[in-house]
Amino acid sequence: MDYGKKSLAQHKKLAGKISLSLKDDLSSKDKLSIYYTPGVAAVSSYLAIHPEETKKYTWTNNNVAVISDGSAVLGLGNIGPEGALPVMEGKAMLFKNFANIDAVPIVLNVHSVEEIISTVKAIAPSFGGINLEDIAAPQCFEIEERLIKELNIPVMHDDQHGTAVVVLAGLINAAKVAKKKIKDMRIVVVGSGAAGIAIIKLLNSYANPDIIAIDSKGIIHHERGDLNHTKIELLKMTNRRKVKGLLHHALEGTDVFIGVSQPGLLTIDMIKSMNKDPIVFAMANPIPEIMPDIAKKAGVKIMATGRSDYPNQVNNALAFPGIFRGALDNNVREITTEHKIAAAEAIAKLVKNPSEENIIPPVNTKNLVSSISKLII
Amino acid sequence: MDYGKKSLAQHKKLAGKISLSLKDDLSSKDKLSIYYTPGVAAVSSYLAIHPEETKKYTWTNNNVAVISDGSAVLGLGNIGPEGALPVMEGKAMLFKNFANIDAVPIVLNVHSVEEIISTVKAIAPSFGGINLEDIAAPQCFEIEERLIKELNIPVMHDDQHGTAVVVLAGLINAAKVAKKKIKDMRIVVVGSGAAGIAIIKLLNSYANPDIIAIDSKGIIHHERGDLNHTKIELLKMTNRRKVKGLLHHALEGTDVFIGVSQPGLLTIDMIKSMNKDPIVFAMANPIPEIMPDIAKKAGVKIMATGRSDYPNQVNNALAFPGIFRGALDNNVREITTEHKIAAAEAIAKLVKNPSEENIIPPVNTKNLVSSISKLII
Repeated sequence: MDYGKKSLAQHKKLAGKISLSLKDDLSSKDKLSIYYTPGVAAVSSYLAIHPEETKKYTWTNNNVAVISDGSAVLGLGNIGPEGALPVMEGKAMLFKNFANIDAVPIVLNVHSVEEIISTVKAIAPSFGGINLEDIAAPQCFEIEERLIKELNIPVMHDDQHGTAVVVLAGLINAAKVAKKKIKDMRIVVVGSGAAGIAIIKLLNSYANPDIIAIDSKGIIHHERGDLNHTKIELLKMTNRRKVKGLLHHALEGTDVFIGVSQPGLLTIDMIKSMNKDPIVFAMANPIPEIMPDIAKKAGVKIMATGRSDYPNQVNNALAFPGIFRGALDNNVREITTEHKIAAAEAIAKLVKNPSEENIIPPVNTKNLVSSISKLII
Repeated sequence: MDYGKKSLAQHKKLAGKISLSLKDDLSSKDKLSIYYTPGVAAVSSYLAIHPEETKKYTWTNNNVAVISDGSAVLGLGNIGPEGALPVMEGKAMLFKNFANIDAVPIVLNVHSVEEIISTVKAIAPSFGGINLEDIAAPQCFEIEERLIKELNIPVMHDDQHGTAVVVLAGLINAAKVAKKKIKDMRIVVVGSGAAGIAIIKLLNSYANPDIIAIDSKGIIHHERGDLNHTKIELLKMTNRRKVKGLLHHALEGTDVFIGVSQPGLLTIDMIKSMNKDPIVFAMANPIPEIMPDIAKKAGVKIMATGRSDYPNQVNNALAFPGIFRGALDNNVREITTEHKIAAAEAIAKLVKNPSEENIIPPVNTKNLVSSISKLII
């Protein structure tokens, strides 16, 4: 199916994918007086004195804002708020479909770190949680970090942590299949945008393996003079062997390739230079760093991609619905590293008998959301 | 019924009055690929190049943000965003119920004119229209004026214009019943907040009658040294006879009292000083400037209040659903004075045979919304 063509037609036909519904009708004068004036004044007066009870009386107990400035949308780059809106509406559909969360797409006409932070803080009392989405690196890091500190509701940039959680889940099962331990693995992560950096941080927290990070200039190492603050911080958890050079230098003698980068970056020769039974997560979208059939022929044991038409799809939708469901249900103010690790372990555990073609469960797995949400406490 | 008590109980029971619904289910992999990735990328790419077509492909063709900073909520004053939220959710219910508009309550944690304007502009690409609500005067005037200028979607502060439209509608029919012409009337407007000033402006545009405006210090006249910018502007359209003094000085020999002020302000003696067959719109809430039975005994011919338990309720819900329905359907970028007058005339016309107790139609009048929306072009 030509999904693009079909998608344009279907979006035009529906004219938007979401709508509002009411939890009760307004069929009588009494109902109007209860849900609106004069009755609602009692609720307003009460919450003015007890703002901490707002979730009990309003939809903030079940809603999340899906916020983007459109600066890094899918693989399309900086396409602005209008271009981002259909993706955020789609994300709202996923929130509702998988976790029964009322998500509101908010696209922003501002792009600086300070303006995005001010805007999100200004509208925050309207929501029970904030899902940041498709905001470019490195701005996304400071925006998320500051909002987590300055707001008392959960804030998560899904491009970072959703992906990282599912990668960790997949790697937990891949390690079982390959009979290796993550802590003993040598891992190369290619792409140091939002997802790449979050993956490195989460793997580091989980098991402190040997990680080398690669950006568009090659291996991130101590002697490079062109590193920004975020990448300098990365050096604390990567490149303990002080390797220099390009991707193929990094990959020699390693166990795992994790790519959130460019199509076609990984070659057969590079795979052959890796340790026995290499694990490859090639998540460039829609065309991965290497196609699964080619990778398998070159000796890759376990292969994951971002695509739904191959086994082992690394799909954010495995993680964020359960994480936010738990955060809302359990009044969690901050989604921590421990929460993310718990979510990854829960996802991994849903694969009963991990095998090469089955390290990541599908998004329609029974009890997926509840398995995660009960751990976000 | 004790609406306050019932309202608290019902809000707690429902835990919020609104939720999100999806225009289609996500029951298949194909649907996920059409509404989200990879298909949605085609829609995003298209809108990045043609942002002016966003309404055709997203829910902005049918959504409105209901925005308040909680600084002037109902009769409760400045109770903050949390206190305001149940009212905004209620307003969203009215939008959906009366006009099938998907309204999103947004309460703000900022209160200065500049911060409110920046925030609303930042989130504006997410919406097809902006309904400002319960924002204190005089800030509300500059906020609305600037947003109308600086955004290309319709913006309306309902506390100003919703009330003004319904007052004009009622006065059109009251004039018929009293066999007077609005242009020949002497009118006193008490209360120079958001609603009072908008009423004066709309009546002035409609028929340029003789209007005297009253604030908490008395008659607004040229020699007062304590007038802010908004009130100085008011002098261009009020007090042509240069009257000074208090309410009772203003009312002598006038035809109409319009109150958006304080309970009990209007006395029997004042009514007796007015011209024959006085018209009184006493809209202080929940207790009017004079109770209808007392007013009638004092000689008032036509009486309107803000209450649903007396005849002739001045209810904003008569106006805003049709105005926004029309603005969305007809791609109207600015709601003009002409639109407001057209809406008032449409509402007035829905009362087939106006009489003392029937100058304003009820909110469940058939074809109310469509009668208005078709004129907002």
